[in-house]
Amino acid sequence: MSSENVEPFDAVDVIRAKRDGAAVPEDALRWMVDAYTRGYVADAQMASFAMAVLLNGMQRNEIRVLTDAMIASGERMSFAGLGKRTVDKHSTGGVGDKITLPLAPLVASFGVAVPQLSGRGLGHTGGTLDKLESIPGWRAALTNDELFAQLRDIGAVICAAGSGLAPADKKLYALRDVTGTVEAIPLIASSIMSKKIAEGTDALVLDVKFGGGAFMRDVDKARELARTMVALGTDSGVATTALLTDMNTPLGLAIGNANEVRESVEVLAGGGPADIVELTVALAREMLALAGQPDADVEAALRDGRAMDTWRAMIRAQDGDPDAALPEPRETHTVTASSSGVLTRLDALPFGIAAWRLGAGRARAQDPVLHAAGIDLHVKPGDTVIEGQPLFTLLADDDKRFTRAFDALEDAWEIGDTAPPARPLVLERITA
Amino acid sequence: MSSENVEPFDAVDVIRAKRDGAAVPEDALRWMVDAYTRGYVADAQMASFAMAVLLNGMQRNEIRVLTDAMIASGERMSFAGLGKRTVDKHSTGGVGDKITLPLAPLVASFGVAVPQLSGRGLGHTGGTLDKLESIPGWRAALTNDELFAQLRDIGAVICAAGSGLAPADKKLYALRDVTGTVEAIPLIASSIMSKKIAEGTDALVLDVKFGGGAFMRDVDKARELARTMVALGTDSGVATTALLTDMNTPLGLAIGNANEVRESVEVLAGGGPADIVELTVALAREMLALAGQPDADVEAALRDGRAMDTWRAMIRAQDGDPDAALPEPRETHTVTASSSGVLTRLDALPFGIAAWRLGAGRARAQDPVLHAAGIDLHVKPGDTVIEGQPLFTLLADDDKRFTRAFDALEDAWEIGDTAPPARPLVLERITA
Repeated sequence: MSSENVEPFDAVDVIRAKRDGAAVPEDALRWMVDAYTRGYVADAQMASFAMAVLLNGMQRNEIRVLTDAMIASGERMSFAGLGKRTVDKHSTGGVGDKITLPLAPLVASFGVAVPQLSGRGLGHTGGTLDKLESIPGWRAALTNDELFAQLRDIGAVICAAGSGLAPADKKLYALRDVTGTVEAIPLIASSIMSKKIAEGTDALVLDVKFGGGAFMRDVDKARELARTMVALGTDSGVATTALLTDMNTPLGLAIGNANEVRESVEVLAGGGPADIVELTVALAREMLALAGQPDADVEAALRDGRAMDTWRAMIRAQDGDPDAALPEPRETHTVTASSSGVLTRLDALPFGIAAWRLGAGRARAQDPVLHAAGIDLHVKPGDTVIEGQPLFTLLADDDKRFTRAFDALEDAWEIGDTAPPARPLVLERITA
Repeated sequence: MSSENVEPFDAVDVIRAKRDGAAVPEDALRWMVDAYTRGYVADAQMASFAMAVLLNGMQRNEIRVLTDAMIASGERMSFAGLGKRTVDKHSTGGVGDKITLPLAPLVASFGVAVPQLSGRGLGHTGGTLDKLESIPGWRAALTNDELFAQLRDIGAVICAAGSGLAPADKKLYALRDVTGTVEAIPLIASSIMSKKIAEGTDALVLDVKFGGGAFMRDVDKARELARTMVALGTDSGVATTALLTDMNTPLGLAIGNANEVRESVEVLAGGGPADIVELTVALAREMLALAGQPDADVEAALRDGRAMDTWRAMIRAQDGDPDAALPEPRETHTVTASSSGVLTRLDALPFGIAAWRLGAGRARAQDPVLHAAGIDLHVKPGDTVIEGQPLFTLLADDDKRFTRAFDALEDAWEIGDTAPPARPLVLERITA
């Protein structure tokens, strides 16, 4: 506005273009992200822009440019010297979603590198790093050299993502959180994909969840997000496939941290709940197909101990003891069936919130989690129950937490006369 | 979000409601404006909300509540003890729009109180106070007691609006200016009307302009704004009427400050350009009708000197000398017709910008204006011109300004063969 302004664009012009339904020109969009990261474009301007994006959308090429600009704001990793194909998985988050734990070693057991740079949990969805930190000695932070060596030697790494990847996304995400603009699909897609693309993976499988316990409740919105991310990955040179999966009821029988590790180890030992096995196998098949092994016998690697061997090597490489006892809760409380019949529903969101309140999750990023806290389910929707039979057990370090957990669980499950209709866990497969 | 939060609402919930197309509940909307004024709601949150309002609109009652909340953020004046009806006029701004100058004394000469609390110009539209400050000695700032006494004794006051009226609007307007949300009709309407309603006038006539030199170029948008403001005034207990008027060509023959005062005095003396007289008379009739004098003989008050007497008293009451010589420009440059024919158009916006660059307006709020600078037109669209005849004269204090003014005037007028179709100056009258 003033004559001293040497910036090549004006934030108000960029906002107006999106507000009036136009596509923002590539150089202007790149400038907007860069100038926001530098602090030249104000939070208020980016907030107004984000709301315009939420309400007016973005074209496919705009989303690619936005993502690329966020990647350009930070460092970019490369696994080019590894001599292996790299494949990553990302889940949009759910309740009881420990799939990364068995999946990474399972896929790596086929000679593929799986660099799972992960985060911690916030709110009712758990964090992969929090779960693994239940294992005595295990550490989440690796140097780039350690990460590279472990990918080369073992193939599977689950570790903390460095703060140098896409710092613009970090700033923008914090802003979206307080300005009602979290739900903009172009912004969700570019937020997730900027970090995955900056990470340098060759291929990516997305587990995009829908339903009551998912970030996207509505299946159509989840499908739109999945399609947007598959297009974005493809446009950015990362082979990308997505599965649209049901998150109306918790995955598996364990919700928490240590108990989810236990359940993951059961799967790696060839057992475990059917839904966890089904989703792990489905995602492993997609990852291996993108890595050039469409016919890999995934179930065999679970049966014959290859996946378990990789798991143990992966945990040991990060100073964890795969044989150590996991933390146990000091207090438990089991809820039993008040009548006989069929469990018709058990809702993911309230069970996720209850586990969070029991101490398995955190309300603020700096809070610790209680590794032994959570919920063990004894039945799943469709199971027959008899009056007095245990339905689920709350796990905590302090029985005062049970009351607040119960508040979340009011009307969270139902026993009826007839079994609920079967719902496919994997609803659709979305490819480029 | 945290348990320490004792605020009754959450800004994100308010933003989401508007984002998702709902009406914001009255108490939540009042809180949002109050919390923003207090600094609890951040600029980024209000910016996101403003963009959602721009794209999703507001219902009639929401606009009333928003306006009321902005009024409640500051002081409220009252002219109840005056013993006269008060009627005010507001123009959305144009080029050569000096109508307030003859209008206020004209209406006041019928025994009505006209409290014209005005602003300064910014950008290509001039400011009423800037024009009047061309008169030696005249001062814009009055105390409330001086304002009240002048309304009682003379009836007409044109003075600076105090900063205590609707401070929330001041903060919100500055935010909208940098976030691409100026054009939201509910926000424009509440911004204008909150100050006029806080001012305590009984009735209000709005001059809502459309066309190239107006804030609203599009006649449909201008009509929507006029209807919104008429509804808002009515809902708030202020009798309100609007005229939708053409701002494609400058009003009158003078664009600037001192030259606009000269033209206003010509109108008060019973002469002046036909369009200025027409609009002054039309607005005076509306104002007098709202003040209970629908049959007032407005033209007679211009002919017989009553309006001029009130003007002189008004200027003197604010320490101005109505007989003093007005500032004259040091440099002038006259542009002549390059061919003979009919002037088919002379565009308001470029002429407004040229006058601004000559020094009649300001780029930043703290800049001074040059009172003698501006443009005198010698012809208007529809006039016959002969090659070599003067078309307009640029007025400045420094001839270096002429070049920049000419840059704005490229293709700003046209001489053709046939007269342009006549366009009514007052297109529509909008009432509750």
